[in-house]
Amino acid sequence: MAETVRVVVDAMGGDNAPAEPVKAAVEAVTERDDIVVILTGKQEVIESELSKFQNYPKERIQVVNATEVIETAEPPVVAIRKKKDSSIVVGLNLVKKQEADAFVSSGSSGAILVGGQVIVGRSKGVQRPPLAPLIPTEKGVSLLIDCGANVDARPDHLVQFAKMGSIYMEDVVGIKNPRVAIVNNGAEEEKGNALVKETFPLLKECPGINFIGSIEARDIPAGYADVIVCEAFVGNVILKLYEGLGSTFMKMIKSGLMKDTRSKVGALLVKPAIKETMKAFDASEYGGAPLLGLKGLVVKTHGSAKAVEIRHAIFQCVQFRQQKINEKIAAHMVEETQKAETPKEEA
Amino acid sequence: MAETVRVVVDAMGGDNAPAEPVKAAVEAVTERDDIVVILTGKQEVIESELSKFQNYPKERIQVVNATEVIETAEPPVVAIRKKKDSSIVVGLNLVKKQEADAFVSSGSSGAILVGGQVIVGRSKGVQRPPLAPLIPTEKGVSLLIDCGANVDARPDHLVQFAKMGSIYMEDVVGIKNPRVAIVNNGAEEEKGNALVKETFPLLKECPGINFIGSIEARDIPAGYADVIVCEAFVGNVILKLYEGLGSTFMKMIKSGLMKDTRSKVGALLVKPAIKETMKAFDASEYGGAPLLGLKGLVVKTHGSAKAVEIRHAIFQCVQFRQQKINEKIAAHMVEETQKAETPKEEA
Repeated sequence: MAETVRVVVDAMGGDNAPAEPVKAAVEAVTERDDIVVILTGKQEVIESELSKFQNYPKERIQVVNATEVIETAEPPVVAIRKKKDSSIVVGLNLVKKQEADAFVSSGSSGAILVGGQVIVGRSKGVQRPPLAPLIPTEKGVSLLIDCGANVDARPDHLVQFAKMGSIYMEDVVGIKNPRVAIVNNGAEEEKGNALVKETFPLLKECPGINFIGSIEARDIPAGYADVIVCEAFVGNVILKLYEGLGSTFMKMIKSGLMKDTRSKVGALLVKPAIKETMKAFDASEYGGAPLLGLKGLVVKTHGSAKAVEIRHAIFQCVQFRQQKINEKIAAHMVEETQKAETPKEEA
Repeated sequence: MAETVRVVVDAMGGDNAPAEPVKAAVEAVTERDDIVVILTGKQEVIESELSKFQNYPKERIQVVNATEVIETAEPPVVAIRKKKDSSIVVGLNLVKKQEADAFVSSGSSGAILVGGQVIVGRSKGVQRPPLAPLIPTEKGVSLLIDCGANVDARPDHLVQFAKMGSIYMEDVVGIKNPRVAIVNNGAEEEKGNALVKETFPLLKECPGINFIGSIEARDIPAGYADVIVCEAFVGNVILKLYEGLGSTFMKMIKSGLMKDTRSKVGALLVKPAIKETMKAFDASEYGGAPLLGLKGLVVKTHGSAKAVEIRHAIFQCVQFRQQKINEKIAAHMVEETQKAETPKEEA
């Protein structure tokens, strides 16, 4: 039997807490027996939620009390420092102390990103841990790396993103020899802003990744690459525009279908098919966004995540742990660091 | 009667040349009598195209022979310098010599952007002419400024974009007191990369524009702002992702509708409504992207533009000319330059 993986779920985080995170925990341990979920948050609230469920393996859900909650609007650095007994800080500390393997939260992105780095800590050799959500494409999913809070990355950060993203796509998502591309404003090699122009040759020469060159934003939804490397500001624009355009298209099609009687009748017939199609393009189906390059696994799920998304994120953590992604990333980065240091020693 | 506007149309530019540009010219002069179109390109080819049409005001279409064609793949700077007798260079020279008011082309973006600056020239005080397409939103259209070829802009460039964009939206598109927002990775003022953080206070203090703060990419399709200010690399990502996601959604919905018999029957009924809805979200309905801040008007239409888009671009030029946008931008920028210079003189 596979190793049991211990996943902390923040029961207080997100718009739908505590109901949806608790439901996700129950569903996860019911569906798979290699998972233990540790719920952090106000004990009496969590226990009251749990009491709504019967017939689940109760021994594989634990509750760790945390009396405080970090709100989305709080400045992240201050919140992490001050609210030591918040569900986020308590949860991240469990990962730090190796009492858990992973932490999943739909709470404040800023606090999770800061807390992940400050409490769990970066793996040796990792300069900047990127936030890397999976985004849907016509062909499946691609990893968009980085969408984190630290903008204005340097070329060597982007090269690390390419490596970490490749390991993730190969071992967690199961795509052999994943194609890596850098987001650019044209397909030609001479295109790009200063950052991209400097990064491009580094990626081209980087061993161990399958770099296929530039990708224009137009080709991202078509699934031309598996690992989409970009600086966090650009990643944020891509991710948010995906959300915004998806919602706008659905609204417009719905209102279009209500225009006349003919369309209304047709709408009844096509609704299930359209709904299913759009579901395949809904990012929430693909779990959360991992913060890569830490000593433990931290996964951010959408603020409005429902149980289905949180459950997928929990499963993602199991895959991540069982595939030893952290160890692989750490080994890769340390190797790189040693290589980078060697010439200096010789000099 | 309104002043007649003389618009050069590049008959050799784009995937559908010469047929679509020539058709657009014929339609434009037929529909409105305040337009003269000057077609540049190979005379015999253009005349053969024109001979397919009857019953149009022939005296308002002129042909100016240009024996060369700049291909999309050619390096723009070299192409503009070497191919003096190309449809683009000949057309831009007509604008420079004030023998025409505007130039419309679906040809090489790079050549049009370079040629616009080198041949037609920047208005006094304009530091960098931005390319500013109208993009569709739930509420109408927004101006996305800048999507040009010059990336890595400075804060003062972005402030000029905000001003030029405001003038354009107010006087060409007819939106009173247009809302200006800067693309950011969060709504809070402390968010942003170095460029946005430096630009934000400048826009806040800038007189004569209606600055409403940051806009997240998620809110662009919903139409939260009329003038969307960003650096060209980011603008390019937004514009291209609009295209890519639009095409992907349509493909997915179409294939979704073919899944089973029930949907197939429904599809017949809903097709016209969906088609009409998506047409409202098709950028080609909104003419071309003007290159603002030049001494004449230069408009880039999509490489795959059909007659309808080119015709809209021609009408856009008429509006632009009759509203004296160039003069307004020039007056505004010169005023700014003088203001900026005054303190130095006093010191």
